[in-house]
Amino acid sequence: MRNGLIMTPGPTEVSERVRMAMAKPITNPDLDPGFFDFYDETCDKLKKILITRNDVLILNGEGILGLESAIASLIEPGDKVLCLANGVFGEGFGEFAELYGAEVVYLRKEYDDAFTVDDVKKFLAKNNGFKLATVVHCETPAGMINPIEEICPVLKEAGIITVVDAVSSIAGQKVMTDDWGIDIVLGGSQKCLSASPGLTFLSISKDAWKCMEERKTPVPGFYTNLLKWKQMWYKDRVFPYTQPVSDIYGLSEAADVVLEEGENIYIRHARIANAVRDTLKDAGFKIFPKEGAEANTVTAFYIPQGIDDEKFREHLWDKYNVMIAGSWGKLSGKVWRIGHMGENAREEKLFQFFRAFEKALLDFKYSLPIPIGKIFAEKI
Amino acid sequence: MRNGLIMTPGPTEVSERVRMAMAKPITNPDLDPGFFDFYDETCDKLKKILITRNDVLILNGEGILGLESAIASLIEPGDKVLCLANGVFGEGFGEFAELYGAEVVYLRKEYDDAFTVDDVKKFLAKNNGFKLATVVHCETPAGMINPIEEICPVLKEAGIITVVDAVSSIAGQKVMTDDWGIDIVLGGSQKCLSASPGLTFLSISKDAWKCMEERKTPVPGFYTNLLKWKQMWYKDRVFPYTQPVSDIYGLSEAADVVLEEGENIYIRHARIANAVRDTLKDAGFKIFPKEGAEANTVTAFYIPQGIDDEKFREHLWDKYNVMIAGSWGKLSGKVWRIGHMGENAREEKLFQFFRAFEKALLDFKYSLPIPIGKIFAEKI
Repeated sequence: MRNGLIMTPGPTEVSERVRMAMAKPITNPDLDPGFFDFYDETCDKLKKILITRNDVLILNGEGILGLESAIASLIEPGDKVLCLANGVFGEGFGEFAELYGAEVVYLRKEYDDAFTVDDVKKFLAKNNGFKLATVVHCETPAGMINPIEEICPVLKEAGIITVVDAVSSIAGQKVMTDDWGIDIVLGGSQKCLSASPGLTFLSISKDAWKCMEERKTPVPGFYTNLLKWKQMWYKDRVFPYTQPVSDIYGLSEAADVVLEEGENIYIRHARIANAVRDTLKDAGFKIFPKEGAEANTVTAFYIPQGIDDEKFREHLWDKYNVMIAGSWGKLSGKVWRIGHMGENAREEKLFQFFRAFEKALLDFKYSLPIPIGKIFAEKI
Repeated sequence: MRNGLIMTPGPTEVSERVRMAMAKPITNPDLDPGFFDFYDETCDKLKKILITRNDVLILNGEGILGLESAIASLIEPGDKVLCLANGVFGEGFGEFAELYGAEVVYLRKEYDDAFTVDDVKKFLAKNNGFKLATVVHCETPAGMINPIEEICPVLKEAGIITVVDAVSSIAGQKVMTDDWGIDIVLGGSQKCLSASPGLTFLSISKDAWKCMEERKTPVPGFYTNLLKWKQMWYKDRVFPYTQPVSDIYGLSEAADVVLEEGENIYIRHARIANAVRDTLKDAGFKIFPKEGAEANTVTAFYIPQGIDDEKFREHLWDKYNVMIAGSWGKLSGKVWRIGHMGENAREEKLFQFFRAFEKALLDFKYSLPIPIGKIFAEKI
């Protein structure tokens, strides 16, 4: 492996400060009361970032474990679930609900278009009986953001438990968990928080706990069972399994970095995202999501005709040491994605990317109408 | 939190060398082919430690995830499972099989007594129809080891898939996966390998894969579904989820440390374990497992009458900065446990423990017939 500029939409660069926190000597997390307090303190930091007074848990696994744990713990076979699907992740969320026996009703929209509050209101006027709804905040594969600040209150008002995947938005675009009525919001360590991949975290409302506790059937798993945390950790102060001490050291430090920056973190992400989009548009590229639906943490734009997706990205990495991402599902081969989240939402990194990008495009006989690196420097 | 001498049976001390490996800059594990190779190389190191040519996978989770993944992927509702239970972990293994719908038959023995090959042969002469058997190598809560080198070949010969929990023995007591006919053996990063907690790994035989592939019902989960790895990683070179880069850096380095020491690692663990047991016995303590059943990675011994388990351990930690463990389940309050695995199986650490132990016992008005620290120094 070699070091390079990784401008993919997560995992993001992990700063030396966070990496050094991970390198500290460890303790026995099952027995050291000092670690119990440290775990609580780290959860409290995440509560501040999520703007919530709900419980927050850190789980030893990737973001998908957080998602599966929410689904596995809430859903019983036959439950009616509303899945808001306007992207690869939204569709996947529904598949998880189906895996756990839910009767899933999909409200779908094109992958480049965000849901509006009217979409949801119109749908709910004609459909009901949903136990919970799944919503994706930032559709990473499409660089698109859904307005959960408008959608979730409407769902909550209709008595529906809301489960939001905010893995690639938390700490990049504001998530106001309590104000927006989000019952479970889940995140990952490796996106805007810029800690190393390996951890997921969730905030869990009283309504969500109640929903789990009123299950008629047991949760069909252990590692994904949030009720084990309720019974063992919250009640008896015993972790359901040995905690990943070093990873939590890193996450705690990364949360400090975020909290120290404060509100500016959202301004920084917006400023960088705007400059990236404007620069690309000036250079003739077409942004994938419709105007107003673009995320501030990742930009997806159409691959120019005649350029091979994989060959180009390989070349950019091999010759210029810069990595960007393609996409997944039906967006694969159609768009490129630049991650500008957390430690990667820095103007010097985007400048370095654009400089390498224009050279690599020239190598592919694709000449841009403008010097894209310089234009970015002007726009930022 | 404060640093101290953690002599519990895992997590063990993580050396600076391994911690510094964890602190290296990361890459994008989903897209960097260099990381794909690194993951393979790390699995190859684990294959050497497990003495196997079977596939080895590293999963992003604690040891219990490895165990649950094996159970979830192999078992279908109604399958007949033989559970060898002579300890807290053995019983728990059976509960996991029940959670996934197995019809579990328990072959039980006292918690201080290891299974013999005759126990198993006699049982199999009268019982059959088992799809798989669960076996615990080292019963950490009891400091007892089961002779899997004798048991597993007999089970395998009877056409039963063998699943072995060797979390607290691997790299401390030899596990010869292929020679002993073990279909799945699972381990954790935080025991004798002395990496940070957070990872589990499994070796999976062709018979085990075949058993999973011939399922009639789907695996009832995603994060625990080993077939996803077969389909996505082995076939398409796509990880089922973003890999925990830093943790795998650490595990890889820890595996190097183990392989560099070679055969001596098993001699070292045996030498330390013998000296610990002999010292305790000379001082009048009673070892929990019967003679010949004691593990070389952890020693469990009866708490002297009149001493409060928790108060004593708290005192040892608060005044002398040394942590030892109590136990779980019906052994709780009955035995103390000293971990001497991996980086903790070092004579100077055991010496430090014994010196603190004798002082702490004196504080509790319990005077030993011999100076236990000096005796250990003579025995080692």
